[in-house]
Amino acid sequence: MTVTGLLGEIADVGRDPRRGGYSRHGFSAVESALREWFAEAAARRDLDLHTDRNGNIWAWWGRPGPDAVITGSHLDSVPGGGAFDGPLGVASALAAVDVLRASGFQPARPLALVVFTEEEGGRFGVPCLGSRLMSGSLDADAARRLTDPDGITLAEAAASAGLDPAGLGSDEAALAGIGCFVELHVEQGRLMDRLPGTPSVAVASSILAHGRWRFTVTGTGNHAGTTEVADRRDPMLPAAAAVLAARRALGSRESARATVGRLLPTPGGTNVIASVVDFWLDARAPDGPETRAVVAEVEAAAREAAAEEGCELSVREESYGGAVHFDSALRDRLAAELGGPGGAVPVLPTGAGHDAGILAARVPTAMLFVRNPTGISHAPAEHAEPADCTAGADALARVLESLCR
Amino acid sequence: MTVTGLLGEIADVGRDPRRGGYSRHGFSAVESALREWFAEAAARRDLDLHTDRNGNIWAWWGRPGPDAVITGSHLDSVPGGGAFDGPLGVASALAAVDVLRASGFQPARPLALVVFTEEEGGRFGVPCLGSRLMSGSLDADAARRLTDPDGITLAEAAASAGLDPAGLGSDEAALAGIGCFVELHVEQGRLMDRLPGTPSVAVASSILAHGRWRFTVTGTGNHAGTTEVADRRDPMLPAAAAVLAARRALGSRESARATVGRLLPTPGGTNVIASVVDFWLDARAPDGPETRAVVAEVEAAAREAAAEEGCELSVREESYGGAVHFDSALRDRLAAELGGPGGAVPVLPTGAGHDAGILAARVPTAMLFVRNPTGISHAPAEHAEPADCTAGADALARVLESLCR
Repeated sequence: MTVTGLLGEIADVGRDPRRGGYSRHGFSAVESALREWFAEAAARRDLDLHTDRNGNIWAWWGRPGPDAVITGSHLDSVPGGGAFDGPLGVASALAAVDVLRASGFQPARPLALVVFTEEEGGRFGVPCLGSRLMSGSLDADAARRLTDPDGITLAEAAASAGLDPAGLGSDEAALAGIGCFVELHVEQGRLMDRLPGTPSVAVASSILAHGRWRFTVTGTGNHAGTTEVADRRDPMLPAAAAVLAARRALGSRESARATVGRLLPTPGGTNVIASVVDFWLDARAPDGPETRAVVAEVEAAAREAAAEEGCELSVREESYGGAVHFDSALRDRLAAELGGPGGAVPVLPTGAGHDAGILAARVPTAMLFVRNPTGISHAPAEHAEPADCTAGADALARVLESLCR
Repeated sequence: MTVTGLLGEIADVGRDPRRGGYSRHGFSAVESALREWFAEAAARRDLDLHTDRNGNIWAWWGRPGPDAVITGSHLDSVPGGGAFDGPLGVASALAAVDVLRASGFQPARPLALVVFTEEEGGRFGVPCLGSRLMSGSLDADAARRLTDPDGITLAEAAASAGLDPAGLGSDEAALAGIGCFVELHVEQGRLMDRLPGTPSVAVASSILAHGRWRFTVTGTGNHAGTTEVADRRDPMLPAAAAVLAARRALGSRESARATVGRLLPTPGGTNVIASVVDFWLDARAPDGPETRAVVAEVEAAAREAAAEEGCELSVREESYGGAVHFDSALRDRLAAELGGPGGAVPVLPTGAGHDAGILAARVPTAMLFVRNPTGISHAPAEHAEPADCTAGADALARVLESLCR
């Protein structure tokens, strides 16, 4: 089946009527529907399904075993996200199996498809939840206590989705069985589209260092009509100063990123000076020190504005991961396999985080990118051309064939 | 019964566990419980209940009739509001009836207590909904189409609360019967508390002109990690510029107010550049031109920042009311009645909007204020001392006795 056909099967699952696009969050009814779709797709291909203690789903071609070749991605989305970020990697893995089956190929190494839990952190705030838990880079107790915007803990959400929260956490046995991991993903920038010949497929070199910091500015809730300027302690002002500082911090740093996409005034009434404003800074750069320098610059601006307004500021790191440089041997092998006689396949960095970036710390890991003609991602307009998707699945099939030979 | 005792009866209704304080919005289950409480309190006092076509509740002492004296306020709140804004005026009206009954007084004019619908505009965005609809200053068709944050229309909400939405709108018969309206309210600033002798009760002179403007900044939703500065069209930046401009606009305008207390990025993901940011400017000043000058200054700053970022800006007036100067004869009569031989009662302006400000355009209207020791309002910490509340209810009883003689 084609990748586009596979994505079409879930085109109506989890649409977000307010934001547009999809809102598919971890341990939700929508995510259950997507998992069920994957289970049925795996069953139609005679793959054996196994859900691990962190809710990651594995579909084995033949008997599970050591030194396995693993491919896959995630099915969850950001709020109001696109159709490709995540599902493209899962659908391409299924399509690659179809390609290999049609050619009569029989893998000589164990091979499995994987779907990771809550990669976007759209519900519980920590991205790559399933791969972080499995690899032990996120403490299980801390994870169980994470809350969603409605105050539901991750432990409660997992339990209500049928997953025992006591089982969450480091899964060394699963990790020990992985020989290598290859994740295919839609590119989330325009590097490929700007290259001569607009290649359909590229190999990843590295991922920016990346973290999320929660800023909480506390002022004094009060009446918007009666409170004189001298009596105002309005937390919205330091928050606004920080938003502008985040952009200024990028001025001299070409490869850094700083974004405030989530900002929540409490109580949030039109005629009410907010008592508290929470906002989240997403910061990334080629290395840790530069990432932290961006955060420090935003924090300094927020702190100065908070002091001026008589507000309190607290800043909490919600997640952080250093820069990832993918396994060079695996990267070169993929590039050579896909480059063919005609020329080289591009090898490109990305600013986007992935489960592959988490696993790269523990096992040889690589990524394939499929061209994104506009570069837009994390938005309803995210797109990849069907021909590029097919080329991506074919490339993944070639890579898997090579690795499993 | 004391005012404090009456407020105690509803102390647990509509508490907001997330924001603190109360969230009591129009046509909600919480508001129904408050209406039921008022109906029972009125029944215990042999007052005859009548709900009008706009959902305002009237409790008549004796037979309804022309040239009636009306007192009351509202029971709804802002999100996370205090216990006094609104309910103090309703509870004081009930307590004043008890005071007058205990003294054996029999009103010579028709007298009624009133509870107005959705004064804060906390759910449908338009403040003083019940009094605006009744007085015809809000078009009924426009009102029926108003939506709450969940997309529920006012017409649907009214119907589900048992009120025929077809009946909403101008109610000239009800207005024609009102001889005068007196609303008691907690002060929402610190003018009284800063006066020598910290008086318990004051009479209102005027209300600032006041409006709400919805700003919508549209950019391009995109990935927070991969989108380079040159490709960013982030609507959060013009929104932040506008928040800071709102404060700057107050610099030279001592009596003006400008507040952004509500700001909503869409989709609102941490790792997503927002596609749209909506925010609301609450602006007030002693007259219309100064209010509009404040709005124009904020809009100009937002427009400049939007152009710089490649975003679109639209601005929509959601409500506007000119300055209110309360009926001078009624104001002087109340001040003389309450001043007593010992001295004058203070006569003070306010920046807060009230149903009394809407009705003032149609019938002789006055307000009494009860001291607020911190000035805090529209927040959980809003407070009035029990002794001041009792003094307020006694003052209201004296005023009603004088007016109904």
